[in-house]
Amino acid sequence: MILNDYLMSGNGYKIRLLLSMLGQSFEYVERDIMKGETRTPEYLEKINPNGKIPALVLDDGRVLAESNAILGYLAEGTNFIPHDRFERAEMMGWLFFEQYDHEPNVAVLISWYEIKGLPDNADIFEPMKQAGAKRALDLMERRLSDHNWLVGEALTIADISLYAYTHRAELGKISLQPYPGIRAWLARIEALPGYVPITWTP
Amino acid sequence: MILNDYLMSGNGYKIRLLLSMLGQSFEYVERDIMKGETRTPEYLEKINPNGKIPALVLDDGRVLAESNAILGYLAEGTNFIPHDRFERAEMMGWLFFEQYDHEPNVAVLISWYEIKGLPDNADIFEPMKQAGAKRALDLMERRLSDHNWLVGEALTIADISLYAYTHRAELGKISLQPYPGIRAWLARIEALPGYVPITWTP
Repeated sequence: MILNDYLMSGNGYKIRLLLSMLGQSFEYVERDIMKGETRTPEYLEKINPNGKIPALVLDDGRVLAESNAILGYLAEGTNFIPHDRFERAEMMGWLFFEQYDHEPNVAVLISWYEIKGLPDNADIFEPMKQAGAKRALDLMERRLSDHNWLVGEALTIADISLYAYTHRAELGKISLQPYPGIRAWLARIEALPGYVPITWTP
Repeated sequence: MILNDYLMSGNGYKIRLLLSMLGQSFEYVERDIMKGETRTPEYLEKINPNGKIPALVLDDGRVLAESNAILGYLAEGTNFIPHDRFERAEMMGWLFFEQYDHEPNVAVLISWYEIKGLPDNADIFEPMKQAGAKRALDLMERRLSDHNWLVGEALTIADISLYAYTHRAELGKISLQPYPGIRAWLARIEALPGYVPITWTP
């Protein structure tokens, strides 16, 4: 397997973190999104027509895109996906929440301050994204204030997915101070076997 | 089962369309999002803390949110989900694409023109959303120009999910003229047994 990725991408890190926890080997290929390396005609044609990382090339050459779909593929049949049908649906609910309510706010703010710089009309976008990030974290805290994990009684790929950007929220000038449940959950994940930081590659 | 929904919501319509195709009976409860009926303390506490429709209340009282997660729950074990592991992951990829790249552009434009009116700073947001909608439809056309369905050789819940807002794109002032593959695919879905329009309730 070859993972096309960008080191500081939380979406890519999700996959690296799961692969490390699964103890599964893979090859890592860095694609610098700031240099347009995921928008070249070759990348769009052969790897991902959506021009994004992560994209996982399987040993038979087929390619999967969309970070949370890749997590689901890799975790099938493992304990990272609940055996109960209802819990599986709850897990999927958190994964869609991650892409709709969380990532477009938390990840985008981190990316502005850490990688890309503020966009035009930042005076309009910045408070909107900050409010969205707060709503998303409030919803996570509601669950994590009295549960160890987002779904059921064990870690699932929903935790891995939401960990990726949440643990760096403060780089997006989003304080985690009001969220003791989230902070305890972050520490719980960081104590797991196979845990690696976002700077890790195989 | 009780579906908390809002008639003109594409996210709710996805569920109604699948339930109709499955021939599964359910109770429909309209929640007028324009009157704040999904933001009442009772709705947030008992139905969905994220304050959104659709939310499906199962016969045992448990509740599922997130339209695409509900589709996955209802379709488990049916032919609306591919039996092949790789195709299942591709299907999930389209579902995440729907929530990240498609819905925030296509659905939001439709909602502005049909339901909510234009937001503040529409001069900034409108061209941004139109460009995003075009990118999303371009990507769908790339697949549908020479395939009948988004994944494999049969309809999946990815088709149902992306149908919901795509078939109303022109209400968002997004022309489908440049997309013959998408238009043929829309007609293909509308010819299926159990197909119902967005105005349908049981």
